[in-house]
Amino acid sequence: MEPTALAFLAAGIGAGIVAIGASVGIGRLAASAMEGSARQPEAAGDIRTSMIIAAALIEGVALFGLVICFLLAIK
Amino acid sequence: MEPTALAFLAAGIGAGIVAIGASVGIGRLAASAMEGSARQPEAAGDIRTSMIIAAALIEGVALFGLVICFLLAIK
Amino acid sequence: MEPTALAFLAAGIGAGIVAIGASVGIGRLAASAMEGSARQPEAAGDIRTSMIIAAALIEGVALFGLVICFLLAIK
Repeated sequence: MEPTALAFLAAGIGAGIVAIGASVGIGRLAASAMEGSARQPEAAGDIRTSMIIAAALIEGVALFGLVICFLLAIK
Repeated sequence: MEPTALAFLAAGIGAGIVAIGASVGIGRLAASAMEGSARQPEAAGDIRTSMIIAAALIEGVALFGLVICFLLAIK
Repeated sequence: MEPTALAFLAAGIGAGIVAIGASVGIGRLAASAMEGSARQPEAAGDIRTSMIIAAALIEGVALFGLVICFLLAIK
């Protein structure tokens, strides 16, 4: 089997796993943000700011992971 | 086995895993948004704004992951 | 099978596992930060600072893990 064959396989499966990770993480923290906004509507602005910061940190890891998969996919 | 064979396999499996991840994440946060809006109808606007921001972040990761699968599929 | 073949496979799967780990970790602590901000809106600033510090520590480990996957991917 040629190396590029496994590179392609890894790119596809890796992209999928990265998406699962990022989605579960952002989904979990955003769900709590929604529930918090509902409980204290006057804190919705503060909660949203925190939510965006935390989601951006997960997004950063996920995009770097997808860049690695991208490099494998274009071999 | 030729490399493109595994690329096709990975494109299909990867696209499926990406969809699972994004769906679970967006489904989870949107469910909480619905429950929050129901509990505090006057905060529905704030909650909807937060929901769209968080869902868009998951959507960004998922679409990039699908682009990688697309690259594998057209080899 | 050539060594680079497994290096590619490891890069893709490794990037995915790193993303899962970092996302679940940051998602979990950020979710608690949201709930805490909602319960005590006047402590939202303190909670956010703690959240960013903790999330940055997870981010540091995750980025180093992704750099290792990156090195495998460009072999």
